[in-house]
Amino acid sequence: MKALVYHGPGQKAWEEKPNPIIKEPTDAIVKILKTTICGTDLHIMKGDLPEITSGRIIGHEGVGIVEEMGSSVSSFKKGDHVIISCITSCGKCEYCKKGMYSHCTDGGWILGNLIDGTQAEYVRIPHADNSLYPIPAGADEEALVMLSDILPTGFECGVLNGQVKPGDVIAIIGAGPVGMAALLTSQFYTPAEIIVIDMDDNRLAVAKTFGATHTINSSDGKAVEQVKKLTNGRGVDVAIEAVGISATFEMCEEIIGAGGHIANIGVHGKSVTLHMETLWSKNITITTRLVDTVTTPMLLKTVQSKKIEPKKLITHRFKLSQIMEAYDTFGNAAKEKALKVILTNE
Amino acid sequence: MKALVYHGPGQKAWEEKPNPIIKEPTDAIVKILKTTICGTDLHIMKGDLPEITSGRIIGHEGVGIVEEMGSSVSSFKKGDHVIISCITSCGKCEYCKKGMYSHCTDGGWILGNLIDGTQAEYVRIPHADNSLYPIPAGADEEALVMLSDILPTGFECGVLNGQVKPGDVIAIIGAGPVGMAALLTSQFYTPAEIIVIDMDDNRLAVAKTFGATHTINSSDGKAVEQVKKLTNGRGVDVAIEAVGISATFEMCEEIIGAGGHIANIGVHGKSVTLHMETLWSKNITITTRLVDTVTTPMLLKTVQSKKIEPKKLITHRFKLSQIMEAYDTFGNAAKEKALKVILTNE
Amino acid sequence: MKALVYHGPGQKAWEEKPNPIIKEPTDAIVKILKTTICGTDLHIMKGDLPEITSGRIIGHEGVGIVEEMGSSVSSFKKGDHVIISCITSCGKCEYCKKGMYSHCTDGGWILGNLIDGTQAEYVRIPHADNSLYPIPAGADEEALVMLSDILPTGFECGVLNGQVKPGDVIAIIGAGPVGMAALLTSQFYTPAEIIVIDMDDNRLAVAKTFGATHTINSSDGKAVEQVKKLTNGRGVDVAIEAVGISATFEMCEEIIGAGGHIANIGVHGKSVTLHMETLWSKNITITTRLVDTVTTPMLLKTVQSKKIEPKKLITHRFKLSQIMEAYDTFGNAAKEKALKVILTNE
Amino acid sequence: MKALVYHGPGQKAWEEKPNPIIKEPTDAIVKILKTTICGTDLHIMKGDLPEITSGRIIGHEGVGIVEEMGSSVSSFKKGDHVIISCITSCGKCEYCKKGMYSHCTDGGWILGNLIDGTQAEYVRIPHADNSLYPIPAGADEEALVMLSDILPTGFECGVLNGQVKPGDVIAIIGAGPVGMAALLTSQFYTPAEIIVIDMDDNRLAVAKTFGATHTINSSDGKAVEQVKKLTNGRGVDVAIEAVGISATFEMCEEIIGAGGHIANIGVHGKSVTLHMETLWSKNITITTRLVDTVTTPMLLKTVQSKKIEPKKLITHRFKLSQIMEAYDTFGNAAKEKALKVILTNE
Repeated sequence: MKALVYHGPGQKAWEEKPNPIIKEPTDAIVKILKTTICGTDLHIMKGDLPEITSGRIIGHEGVGIVEEMGSSVSSFKKGDHVIISCITSCGKCEYCKKGMYSHCTDGGWILGNLIDGTQAEYVRIPHADNSLYPIPAGADEEALVMLSDILPTGFECGVLNGQVKPGDVIAIIGAGPVGMAALLTSQFYTPAEIIVIDMDDNRLAVAKTFGATHTINSSDGKAVEQVKKLTNGRGVDVAIEAVGISATFEMCEEIIGAGGHIANIGVHGKSVTLHMETLWSKNITITTRLVDTVTTPMLLKTVQSKKIEPKKLITHRFKLSQIMEAYDTFGNAAKEKALKVILTNE
Repeated sequence: MKALVYHGPGQKAWEEKPNPIIKEPTDAIVKILKTTICGTDLHIMKGDLPEITSGRIIGHEGVGIVEEMGSSVSSFKKGDHVIISCITSCGKCEYCKKGMYSHCTDGGWILGNLIDGTQAEYVRIPHADNSLYPIPAGADEEALVMLSDILPTGFECGVLNGQVKPGDVIAIIGAGPVGMAALLTSQFYTPAEIIVIDMDDNRLAVAKTFGATHTINSSDGKAVEQVKKLTNGRGVDVAIEAVGISATFEMCEEIIGAGGHIANIGVHGKSVTLHMETLWSKNITITTRLVDTVTTPMLLKTVQSKKIEPKKLITHRFKLSQIMEAYDTFGNAAKEKALKVILTNE
Repeated sequence: MKALVYHGPGQKAWEEKPNPIIKEPTDAIVKILKTTICGTDLHIMKGDLPEITSGRIIGHEGVGIVEEMGSSVSSFKKGDHVIISCITSCGKCEYCKKGMYSHCTDGGWILGNLIDGTQAEYVRIPHADNSLYPIPAGADEEALVMLSDILPTGFECGVLNGQVKPGDVIAIIGAGPVGMAALLTSQFYTPAEIIVIDMDDNRLAVAKTFGATHTINSSDGKAVEQVKKLTNGRGVDVAIEAVGISATFEMCEEIIGAGGHIANIGVHGKSVTLHMETLWSKNITITTRLVDTVTTPMLLKTVQSKKIEPKKLITHRFKLSQIMEAYDTFGNAAKEKALKVILTNE
Repeated sequence: MKALVYHGPGQKAWEEKPNPIIKEPTDAIVKILKTTICGTDLHIMKGDLPEITSGRIIGHEGVGIVEEMGSSVSSFKKGDHVIISCITSCGKCEYCKKGMYSHCTDGGWILGNLIDGTQAEYVRIPHADNSLYPIPAGADEEALVMLSDILPTGFECGVLNGQVKPGDVIAIIGAGPVGMAALLTSQFYTPAEIIVIDMDDNRLAVAKTFGATHTINSSDGKAVEQVKKLTNGRGVDVAIEAVGISATFEMCEEIIGAGGHIANIGVHGKSVTLHMETLWSKNITITTRLVDTVTTPMLLKTVQSKKIEPKKLITHRFKLSQIMEAYDTFGNAAKEKALKVILTNE
């Protein structure tokens, strides 16, 4: 089969690889129908994740068709259309039993990381019963690619952890795909105001069409001031960090109101400064989370009942064989006005 | 009357002051029976809280007798014995309605701070109906002084915010009075292991008698290593910070297990380093809180039913008129083996 | 002034009464701008609430202008436009401190019940600081009459207690005003399906326009069967009872799925049969609640941000002086296609 | 092997049966070390559970040694000592993912019910990875038999569902084994008062030694009156029903205070009368639950750290081969002063 292979920092190729085979009775082999590229894949390509070795097939999102199952897989059969979760869950370790699949002792985020991933014609999915989700008949499969990672990430790490409530004023810092996923899913809880902050006017304009009530371009360094003004000096109820750098995390610290929640989504490479000298008495909560994808069934219900349109996040479409070109587009997201790209295995 | 008055950094006196009078219909005048000294009072004396002006009567804890009430005070009458909460609550602002009395728009921590406090023969208590609590007949009033601040602080900021559960392994960093209050009240929720960390062997020995299952003297810089060893490398479920400096906060970051809670109690004067490069994916929660004293009625029930003995926290007793001496003792807490001192207005 | 006065079962009159006066320092006198009639008022008129004595002015909903305040009222001043809550809250008793205003030891539901109410030109509001809510400038005051009772009742007793979640399948039994309020506010939490059950086709048609995804006329006795069919035999996640009789409560018991919530709103005059022989093992939760109106500020934010349009509930408008006629209309709700009527004091 | 076999109402025998064998890759065969008899087993013997067919081996509790595993069992190996949960959990269905193992679509309570059980020398355990729990080295295995059913049942259905909090006044109706389990585990949350109600003075005396602060013999029909007196007319915060008949359920309805929780544990054969005419406005919560055993790991930690001594529940000991005699003893629990009996496979 063909697959997108990482060959060390800055090096990748769309090349021939052996088809995956069943290794454990809990495995399934899935033929990829559609996949996508994640911001994390760009980090991998830069060499930011040293645990990823040369020769690895990248990718942790996608929908596909079950091709073959290990002897103990009971929830799926050949031919089933499935969503592949970015998180592998054994369903029986201490963490899985708590719904903290991200820390599964025999899983977690391993796809396209510690084992070969989904940017390929076929993929082996360990613990298939707990790591695949059935696609309902008639569903829009392209939209469901968003359920592999981006939508549960924005929802679990940003919205659920932030405890968004009806009537809240919330701020989302970072209008990339995951910030947009938080924007869409935050509306499940009917906040009164949603302020989206970014440095890219195009993304802010898109955020408006996705439900943002206010947008702020933070390039001029006055975003904190503007949020304070919008909230009569009180700060926001929930601040969702969807960038992953100290500057944006500290912005959350500055705009959070007393009793508020800072929900981190961003992947951080460095420490941040936590201003406990002011925050110690502000009754705030800060959360971190690697997505557990424990809400995938709930999210699927909201998609099926048309309460959310994840398809909105898709800006570009390619054939899977055009993946090198797709990386170029996604790698120049601002210029290309790209959010999520869809790669179809035709 | 006589009162302990702050006269600028390093300066205090036990001197004559006019008796307090009713200013608002919601005020009460309380004759102090017993009061105590808080670590915060030592900070005030050093000049660390610049908002406190020279001439201020210090103190925000105590029990007393209602002497006089404003026209709209309805829950108390002259002669009632009461616990004075360190937090003043109007009961009608947005924050009070949420149970966040610490941020009351006409109260919060003002006693012995923005208005005259309890280290005096009499004190004026604003919003008396919501800021005083009736003492049940026959109660040990000395023990109830611990309900003004120290017990709700340890409980709300440390134990409740940390979400201590049966079977948990918890760590308390700092075995001063507030750490000890967290130690006592954490046992309401039956954790399996309670690790107390401090640099003072005497306090650690006391912690053992208060229910700590393990104690660690962190002087040798190996506390993190020891906690990791005790928890088979997994870290603790709850880490309670009861010191207020970067080193101890970072110790919490190092010992917290995946999915765990860091509950800050300490008053911080400087920022701390938050290691988001490792914490972003650990599904942790960090909380801060200025005590709300919203649990005072619950705590009073546990004291009355003998589920907790706050009196254990009292190590020294003085007459109120000996308060200068009491400050010396409390100010040398390690040497004097002092936790809480009781001052009786005889 | 003129007021609607109850004179025993079946007897009422729009007649002259003395203007209310301040009795306590916490009282306010409010001039009524707009009021409405509640289903409970019809029960009163039938004599179903024997605690209500002849001569009582009825009514517990409305908006108005503050005319005069007692000496300790601090949150309002003469001329302020306010929402009158149906629940009086002292803000300082044990129940008020828990947010359970309905059980306030010096309040609760007393307006138009134990003291004179709002179907009059003026009304005395006890504990005004905690029982009135300021109307923001420019708000649609007619819509805000729905915040006195109907909207918090549907929301707190039905939606919050029922714990409606994104993706849920919920059923609302009873499409009267309070069922409709539950229908509108349930959408704050984005359920996937909302099934409304009633015996009146007009109300079901209205429910469709308010967001019901399915409606069932239960006249043929097949409602349970239809719900089972719609849910593939699993039953609903949340069943909201908004009628108050045994038949509809038992319908909730039959349609509730394993792990589900039955949230009672209806006022019951008789006991109901609880089928514990089937329910004991179904992991369900049943809740009851007299509205606390603790969510009024939250609801006000959702109205101001146009996330909900309570005005939709208003079907008829009268002058306050036409209140006898308004009672006739509201008393024949089915025939008149009435939900809420607005009475304006011109 | 030998096993206790049900042969229709009133008929049972300790007789030879074929050893169980692996049927599914997820199965394990466990050699029983210790087992016990449940009140439910007595119901089975009376013929109250018609789904149980003649020839069935009874029993759903026990500890044992893993003898053989199916090909996909990964958490256990031959020779491991294990607790057998009364609930079988596949770990991958919708209900298991929610922690509602009792409703597992391929499990739930099936042991000694729909498949052969633990009152035998060997037992087949389906979904072994999720239905067995490892016994720590050095643990008291007799005590751990209480973790199969009785302790999680009292804890989950009674204490967790009842939301017992520090300072609460709680009542437990029924001092049989499961009521006693609720009594022991309720103390994890430090209620101020625990009132135990039963008609057997011996059990009430035992309850006192287990931590009850008050006991009431309800034979004289004055239990409700006594509870009201003990609570100054307010009623209790939590009422736990551990009998399963209408009279005791209605007692809970009468003694529950405003805002309180009624947590049902009892297995009911008939409907009960729910007095909604008084309860509709009392803001109460009623819960039902078939034990999920989702708290078994937490309970094991509390046992290992000696926060609870489940061994206290054991009153009689027999050899497994004496099981007919053990049934006689347990069947005359009041006369024999029996709570739990232990049967050892020697």
